[in-house]
Amino acid sequence: MTPQEEFSNRGRIARLRFAFSELRADALLVTHLPNVLYLTGFTGSAGLLLVEREGSVLFTDSRYTLQAREEVSGASVRTAKRGLVRAAGERIGVLRRDRRVQLAYAPSQLTVAQKTTLEKHAAGRLRWVPADNLVERLRAVKDADELSRMREAAELISRVFEQSLEILRPGRRETEVAAELELRMKQSGARGPSFETIVASGPRAAWPHARPSSNRLKKSELVVLDQGAILRCYCSDMTRTVYLGRSPRKIREMYRAVLEAQAAAKAVVEPGVTAEKVDLAARRVLKGHGLEKFFTHSTGHGLGLEVHEMPRIGRGEKTVLEAGMVITIEPGIYIDGLGGIRIEDDVVVTAHGAQDLTTAPREFLEL
Amino acid sequence: MTPQEEFSNRGRIARLRFAFSELRADALLVTHLPNVLYLTGFTGSAGLLLVEREGSVLFTDSRYTLQAREEVSGASVRTAKRGLVRAAGERIGVLRRDRRVQLAYAPSQLTVAQKTTLEKHAAGRLRWVPADNLVERLRAVKDADELSRMREAAELISRVFEQSLEILRPGRRETEVAAELELRMKQSGARGPSFETIVASGPRAAWPHARPSSNRLKKSELVVLDQGAILRCYCSDMTRTVYLGRSPRKIREMYRAVLEAQAAAKAVVEPGVTAEKVDLAARRVLKGHGLEKFFTHSTGHGLGLEVHEMPRIGRGEKTVLEAGMVITIEPGIYIDGLGGIRIEDDVVVTAHGAQDLTTAPREFLEL
Repeated sequence: MTPQEEFSNRGRIARLRFAFSELRADALLVTHLPNVLYLTGFTGSAGLLLVEREGSVLFTDSRYTLQAREEVSGASVRTAKRGLVRAAGERIGVLRRDRRVQLAYAPSQLTVAQKTTLEKHAAGRLRWVPADNLVERLRAVKDADELSRMREAAELISRVFEQSLEILRPGRRETEVAAELELRMKQSGARGPSFETIVASGPRAAWPHARPSSNRLKKSELVVLDQGAILRCYCSDMTRTVYLGRSPRKIREMYRAVLEAQAAAKAVVEPGVTAEKVDLAARRVLKGHGLEKFFTHSTGHGLGLEVHEMPRIGRGEKTVLEAGMVITIEPGIYIDGLGGIRIEDDVVVTAHGAQDLTTAPREFLEL
Repeated sequence: MTPQEEFSNRGRIARLRFAFSELRADALLVTHLPNVLYLTGFTGSAGLLLVEREGSVLFTDSRYTLQAREEVSGASVRTAKRGLVRAAGERIGVLRRDRRVQLAYAPSQLTVAQKTTLEKHAAGRLRWVPADNLVERLRAVKDADELSRMREAAELISRVFEQSLEILRPGRRETEVAAELELRMKQSGARGPSFETIVASGPRAAWPHARPSSNRLKKSELVVLDQGAILRCYCSDMTRTVYLGRSPRKIREMYRAVLEAQAAAKAVVEPGVTAEKVDLAARRVLKGHGLEKFFTHSTGHGLGLEVHEMPRIGRGEKTVLEAGMVITIEPGIYIDGLGGIRIEDDVVVTAHGAQDLTTAPREFLEL
């Protein structure tokens, strides 16, 4: 994000304060940078936010003082000379005179070392209130500004994919294809890829998270392309699987099964449905085709400032979907020696069901 | 890293075991992924290593089972069905029958939530032995294979910089220049940039960690270019500052002062010297020019699998330099409204002093 571009964090700290005051906490410590960005607009890599009942303080270091003053709204900025965590601890120590400060924090985002430092510098004036996912739960439901950014990010990556089909030719290296895709993202205005682009061909396509290798694409092989772009701070994430040449019937049938599984999962999406039901819908279709055992990951995940965020769409996930959530739907099958097939779209949960953000075609492409 | 390429992790786990057995620990938990890569060769994004007195176990999830089996040496691979941390906890719980397991761990790399999960699944059979930086200390001193990779990574980024001077023209956007640099890194064989390339022009050059903006380069302004590439898993990191047009004398004098500070810091580098002495050498030169207060960060940092690793080269750092350490030397000055000047090289500590890995010229370029 450039300082010229306004980040609409307005009202978010107030909503968060409402959530943590129910815990009877005096303050909430925010250490996870995407949460700091969401709440304040700060894009630097050293920031720690203390949300108090009235007012909030962003601690950063001297490298980011100027930048933070330009970017941050809704919090005052302090430059910590001897460490952000220490500065936060010192402030916590003087926050209340009458009793110890009830400090809400996320156990999954605080290290044991940070906890020790805070305790030391708050000089015993602090009581821990564990509370994971307070900010993440707010982030899961996107507002109109966020949805418009995410729609643009999804359209951008769809266009990049469609315009890049001509580079998927036998003889090209996986790494070359990935570099070309990432350059085109940037040329289209993206800040960059939202994760390391996956181009996995042949047997390597059976690795769901293969990193591109120097292997060359070959005729008569599957190629899995998993790519996303960051545009105006928000991520997109899509996967398509193509075949180089005319595919055997068995491959086409497997592709159809995965696509059917994806459609079944999308059909279940609506506010009030649990995440596990969406996952189950995809799994059930693959089971009907005898392919369930090759589907080795969950059906999807939330998407936003981070490429993986709440909710997870998997087995046993009781999270109830709400309108405004953005999730991926990405069933896949992976067969050792043969390769893999995955089809992934970004969708937003609406009162009328899943609405696709990803616009690239889903039919099986034989190139 | 591709599976074709061998990662030379041989002997590293044995050296680590020696270090932690001095702590009387039965096992060491390794959660930080670059440490897992260093010790085992595993490049996936979900891995947790338990180094035991005899043998080691790498826990991963089903997405990475095939990949881990290809990549890992020196540890057995287990697929954790219900979470890596839980699986590690369960194993720790049965590691010793006679008494509780003494488990060494890094407090700065374990979250409060992970600690709780481990305690729960080890069923009280565990005693914590805090020990930060055991693996990082090994990593700080590079072996011959690592030095050859790092030399190549530094040469690659030097070449990319030199070949890209013609794109530094008034009118080009900072983001375009950054995208072009990153594409050239990949075309030269890099896996990608080792951090988001910094192109900061004019007043934005006063932000030491500015992200490229859509601003266009302008005549009569400074441009700071901070860039690095990952090649065969290892990072390079270099900064050059150029001026578009003929610079005022004052700017040239400031540049000379920064270059002099860099040379002074390099001249101090040798085995047995503390990191703070190197920092002080740079700071003293800038003080002589009345510029010390504009030097708002430390002089450098270790470099390797990560772009920032041990040792830090800053005030109060007592770490003693050893032959084989690779560090950056990067004094800089930042003046609000005017811009910034930083010059950064990667050097290896040798018995004969600092040896430059970065090969790009250091003289002031007016383009």
